[in-house]
Amino acid sequence: MRVYNFAAGPSCLPEAVLKKAQAEFLDFAGTGMSICEISHRDKAFGAMVSETEALVRELLNVPEDYAVLFLQGGASTQFAAVPLNLMHTGKADYIVTGNFAKKAWQEGKIYGDAVKIGDSSDKTYTYIPDLDKLEYTPGADYLHITSNNTIFGSVYPEFPVTDAPLVADMSSEIFSREIDVSKFAVIYAGAQKNLAPAGVTIVIAKRELIQDPLKICPTMLQWKVQDENCSLYNTPPSFSIYMANLVLKDLKAKGGVKAIHERDVYKAGLLYDFIDESKLYKNNVEKKYRSIMNIPFVTGSDELDAKFIAEAKKEGLLSLKGHRLVGGMRASIYNAMPVEGVEALITFMKKFEKENA
Amino acid sequence: MRVYNFAAGPSCLPEAVLKKAQAEFLDFAGTGMSICEISHRDKAFGAMVSETEALVRELLNVPEDYAVLFLQGGASTQFAAVPLNLMHTGKADYIVTGNFAKKAWQEGKIYGDAVKIGDSSDKTYTYIPDLDKLEYTPGADYLHITSNNTIFGSVYPEFPVTDAPLVADMSSEIFSREIDVSKFAVIYAGAQKNLAPAGVTIVIAKRELIQDPLKICPTMLQWKVQDENCSLYNTPPSFSIYMANLVLKDLKAKGGVKAIHERDVYKAGLLYDFIDESKLYKNNVEKKYRSIMNIPFVTGSDELDAKFIAEAKKEGLLSLKGHRLVGGMRASIYNAMPVEGVEALITFMKKFEKENA
Repeated sequence: MRVYNFAAGPSCLPEAVLKKAQAEFLDFAGTGMSICEISHRDKAFGAMVSETEALVRELLNVPEDYAVLFLQGGASTQFAAVPLNLMHTGKADYIVTGNFAKKAWQEGKIYGDAVKIGDSSDKTYTYIPDLDKLEYTPGADYLHITSNNTIFGSVYPEFPVTDAPLVADMSSEIFSREIDVSKFAVIYAGAQKNLAPAGVTIVIAKRELIQDPLKICPTMLQWKVQDENCSLYNTPPSFSIYMANLVLKDLKAKGGVKAIHERDVYKAGLLYDFIDESKLYKNNVEKKYRSIMNIPFVTGSDELDAKFIAEAKKEGLLSLKGHRLVGGMRASIYNAMPVEGVEALITFMKKFEKENA
Repeated sequence: MRVYNFAAGPSCLPEAVLKKAQAEFLDFAGTGMSICEISHRDKAFGAMVSETEALVRELLNVPEDYAVLFLQGGASTQFAAVPLNLMHTGKADYIVTGNFAKKAWQEGKIYGDAVKIGDSSDKTYTYIPDLDKLEYTPGADYLHITSNNTIFGSVYPEFPVTDAPLVADMSSEIFSREIDVSKFAVIYAGAQKNLAPAGVTIVIAKRELIQDPLKICPTMLQWKVQDENCSLYNTPPSFSIYMANLVLKDLKAKGGVKAIHERDVYKAGLLYDFIDESKLYKNNVEKKYRSIMNIPFVTGSDELDAKFIAEAKKEGLLSLKGHRLVGGMRASIYNAMPVEGVEALITFMKKFEKENA
């Protein structure tokens, strides 16, 4: 039985994509080889990578003077790559709105003066600081934000407008809303939420800003080198790129980012509305900063939370346990989560509330 | 039709492994989720990673005081990780026996005094320098070698014995011969030759030597951090680790490294014997340094080489083009290449020789 998987990432993928990958698993593009076996120098493979890049450009409307890279190591590796590629004067701003935002800031401190200009930890990261009231550092090499906070379920409804190039970790929301890429210097995202299985990280970077990495930057972390080699400087994570290709084709067929965003808003609305009306469940994020991807909720009782998670699992509603920093439950409802999955969760929540009133 | 894939990596995988992965692609370990979807914090996933580590330890007889890590970024990322974890006094020795050995040395120079103490480029890397005649740098932090040279088809029959910790890139030969891990400080290998699809890199490192990475080492490249987190510091390349798990189980069932080595020697022997007896084909590597994994050969005519590659392709013998640094042909015959594949190649080579005498 296929379950509903509410994991924060890796997370569910479109079932049709999985079935297509399964069907052609031993014969990629009629080559007689598995996608797991084909050389990254093979023409059929190169064509697939090029097509995937074109799909990213089309679906996110990426300007031509931006590189689109498929890298390894997850967003956590990019926490170092950001300063190693951009921190030329030795100072940069960070807004800390969650666990990964904090990690990015801490990594930045290895390489220079990473200034925390905003921090919402005073209220367990349940809001985004008022962007107009922050003191931006004059001449900062960049401003780093985490646009959607996976663990705490908050999101930037709008983005900061500053003189410094804007760098955003969009791991847990990329391809879920339309963005104006030209407002960003760099966007990066681990694939394992909305794009593909774990193993590939997408980086979208304005080319003129990435031409002068720090001397201590490992070659593999130099965006310039990866761009010059079309993400094939060394052997890329072939299978994950291939899966991203299938997911993006599927997204395009479904109407692209605008259409999926409407569906995502609808799905999240169903769950938030139910939570807000319920007497048992509570979501603590300020309404205007609520994520449509990650929805944490608690009953107020650790015991009841544990019971909820255990009983939900029996109903085929999996990976609902909240992150240890928050506790309670969290439903991650990425692009691939069907409306039926959210409806099944709500049905279960109703039943559970009734039984535990 | 399934072809014989002689690519240098990514390369062929055991057909039985591919079929098993295909069969359970939508349901990993009875979880109702694909291996591409399951959370890396799920118990079933954690158990699989632990089992994979145990298989590496068993099959390579890894001592207990060594870490076994599953990382991202390929061997090329480890070219930086090696100095970033080990170069404490700022000097290290490198033996340059091929293209990747040279890249590792060049990356080392970013971080300190990387001394090239041996170099076989004078004869197009067709031999390994005499290890007894090299001038090892006293007090070097480590000595780096590339144990099998994928492009040039040479291998270290024995390993250097020095005071410095020995670091070996074994990407294109790991699991093809028994080694005494205790003689090495660090062994690393991209998976995409003998182990798994691209996307995971194995690092085996003596724990007492990796406790003090350089301050500028990105967190994700710190072996100590990865070890403390059992390779789950961030989301790992799930699918590639899973495939490695299946490949290693398959290897164990086939009798382990000793048994596969005997078969590898037999396979390589068939091809080398035929080449040496032939009037058309030539392998230029000194006999005692010949790799059993990568076998380059030339006809002496670029035109004939091109014809060979084109006609072989029509017979289902793929990816035989040699690297541009060598030209001609190269048959990579890793563990997963069946004896029948080598026999089919020889049959074709005979026919081609006859037709082009």
